[in-house]
Amino acid sequence: MATVKGNMLIGQSGGPTVVINQSLVGAVLEALKHPEIEKIYGARHGMKGILEEDFVDLRQESLETLEAVAMTPASALGSARKKPSPEECARVFEILKKYNIRYYFYIGGNDSAESANIVNENAMQVGYDLRCYHIPKTIDNDLCENDHTPGFGSAAKFVACASMGDNLDSRALPGVKINVIMGRHAGFLTAATALARVYPDDGPHLIYMPERPFVIERFVEDIEKVHARLGRCIVAVSEGIADEQGQAIASKFNKEVDSHGNAQLSGSGALGDLLAGEVKARTKLTRVRADTFGYLQRSFPGITSLVDAKEARKVGMLAVKHAVAKKPNGSIAILRKPGEKYQAVFKRVPLASVAKVTRHMPDEFIAAAGNDVTDAFLAYARPLAGPLPKIGRLQAVPAAKSV
Amino acid sequence: MATVKGNMLIGQSGGPTVVINQSLVGAVLEALKHPEIEKIYGARHGMKGILEEDFVDLRQESLETLEAVAMTPASALGSARKKPSPEECARVFEILKKYNIRYYFYIGGNDSAESANIVNENAMQVGYDLRCYHIPKTIDNDLCENDHTPGFGSAAKFVACASMGDNLDSRALPGVKINVIMGRHAGFLTAATALARVYPDDGPHLIYMPERPFVIERFVEDIEKVHARLGRCIVAVSEGIADEQGQAIASKFNKEVDSHGNAQLSGSGALGDLLAGEVKARTKLTRVRADTFGYLQRSFPGITSLVDAKEARKVGMLAVKHAVAKKPNGSIAILRKPGEKYQAVFKRVPLASVAKVTRHMPDEFIAAAGNDVTDAFLAYARPLAGPLPKIGRLQAVPAAKSV
Repeated sequence: MATVKGNMLIGQSGGPTVVINQSLVGAVLEALKHPEIEKIYGARHGMKGILEEDFVDLRQESLETLEAVAMTPASALGSARKKPSPEECARVFEILKKYNIRYYFYIGGNDSAESANIVNENAMQVGYDLRCYHIPKTIDNDLCENDHTPGFGSAAKFVACASMGDNLDSRALPGVKINVIMGRHAGFLTAATALARVYPDDGPHLIYMPERPFVIERFVEDIEKVHARLGRCIVAVSEGIADEQGQAIASKFNKEVDSHGNAQLSGSGALGDLLAGEVKARTKLTRVRADTFGYLQRSFPGITSLVDAKEARKVGMLAVKHAVAKKPNGSIAILRKPGEKYQAVFKRVPLASVAKVTRHMPDEFIAAAGNDVTDAFLAYARPLAGPLPKIGRLQAVPAAKSV
Repeated sequence: MATVKGNMLIGQSGGPTVVINQSLVGAVLEALKHPEIEKIYGARHGMKGILEEDFVDLRQESLETLEAVAMTPASALGSARKKPSPEECARVFEILKKYNIRYYFYIGGNDSAESANIVNENAMQVGYDLRCYHIPKTIDNDLCENDHTPGFGSAAKFVACASMGDNLDSRALPGVKINVIMGRHAGFLTAATALARVYPDDGPHLIYMPERPFVIERFVEDIEKVHARLGRCIVAVSEGIADEQGQAIASKFNKEVDSHGNAQLSGSGALGDLLAGEVKARTKLTRVRADTFGYLQRSFPGITSLVDAKEARKVGMLAVKHAVAKKPNGSIAILRKPGEKYQAVFKRVPLASVAKVTRHMPDEFIAAAGNDVTDAFLAYARPLAGPLPKIGRLQAVPAAKSV
């Protein structure tokens, strides 16, 4: 396949992350180096912007603006949760042709990879010469073919910091604390709360991931046991926990779904409040509280993981490099070199291999009892989140009692 | 009054902050300089530890540990929300006498100042020579006699960062977003979300504080107006918002109260979910979400305001200095020098003057419509939170449409 001369279109899709703009800027800065790429269009709000031909001219952006945007959380072009219908796909190709777009990049998760794959298949069917790339992004860390995904490391750092603070708060004012963490089908982010532990009695003391069926009786029993031992208990629960039949506990309360058929799990405190209510009703424990970390997990500025930011930049850059180097389509996966010292390896993988399917926590990352992570998970996640704040603790030598 | 030789007791009370340990360490390091102070006891979990004679020997802590603890969020000695009964007060004095405690420091909010004041009055009644000091701490910023309080600046920085990220998230995926912020009777912390604004269309677009009666019809109407203008709307709501009769909206759902008679407002997503439900029910707006920032506001490590940390250290140090300098009791208030450049002034004020009473947002900080803050508030709060992350935004020049 010869090098195609033509225009480029890039879009961002799905839930924002704090490093998704690194990927955008990585791709744009690389594109600027290649004369094969003429216009550089950015689609506003992903598929919606493509269908409405709502494009911005990214060649007009200064280097200074691009670098400032790279450091800024949440999709700068705007995002969407729109899955194109077959009719809309037909319309997408008319538009791609009309704008002579030959380089197409879509930054997102597995739903976005699916959208990109549909675009690619349709292009191939009509013989339209298109370099079609998915650029990975998801705090859920649930893309197949990847060791981990851009966005996860920074979200992991956020939930670890949040859990660190929450553990200190709970040591000061003990009780039962339930924290609900994002992650629809994969427990990676919930598991990352375990990075908060410094001392042996630090929370989270229990971690429930969607990879194991959630049984309320066992949950309450686990909490009672920890509370009997430590006088307090911090629990991290994935928003995606589901019962033995696979029904998400949260979806029992909320029926709102997007066009990919996903129920709304975030943006509500209902699951945390339900679980706290169950603990109150089934035990004699007092001061039972719940927090839902919410959208802050994917958008909080200022505590980005540096490794994550660097890798997000690189996958954007590499997608353009591969596309220009005559490879018609793919996704840039991040793998890891075996060995003590963390080192990422980047690899082009077929677009279809990351589309739609969800990667789950491997068994060796989940403790046998199903309510905690393993050391293998901690070793896996630690370099992705990067250094965490230092925590001090008093020796607290008991004073002699006066008589 | 002559300089008393004797032991010191220090305790921490109420909700933790990220800088309350700065005050503890400031007091301890100052105490180490004064030969009048013999033993330095720390009470575990505030009033509870005093009543149980559960003290730690703070002279055993290394300088390195103390400095690490100073940088660590949440009461290192443990906290409590316990108001001593008259019988318990009698018991406190037996204990103070038994341990020859002549220097007593209690770090906390207005409830804690009240506890300290009760201890002080009882000491005076029985003629016990006690230097009794309250050291201010509260993210609510609601202590009388103070320009602001230690803990507020860092919590303000957290909610400003969180709101900044949330605004970017909402620009990417528009909708209505309601964020519930801590603050029982005073709206300062909710107001501080306004520090997040960088561009004219940035959220939060509406801010509801407990100083103004909350009317659901007006709230929904305000949201519809902003949404019609911007296609999205971010709202910051204080957990303490109350109806025209003064009943807290959140307390309608939760009857749990502490020994100061305060209802549980935090640790539940109920208020946010209720408000989101009302917006959904009363309008045609879609994608209505609520987050409750929860305990993270007072305990999140790693983004402390430097001004706040410095001032928290100083009030701890000054309380000990004043106590040793023969002033029998008081609280260390933080005032502000008039003028362009921010400068704090520290002043001893009578203990009773900060006890129990809540300071509210002054009228000049609240916009006339009651749903926003004024520029005067922003000028007041900005130096307390300190510098915030830089935000970049694409020029987003629309590309010419192809025909």
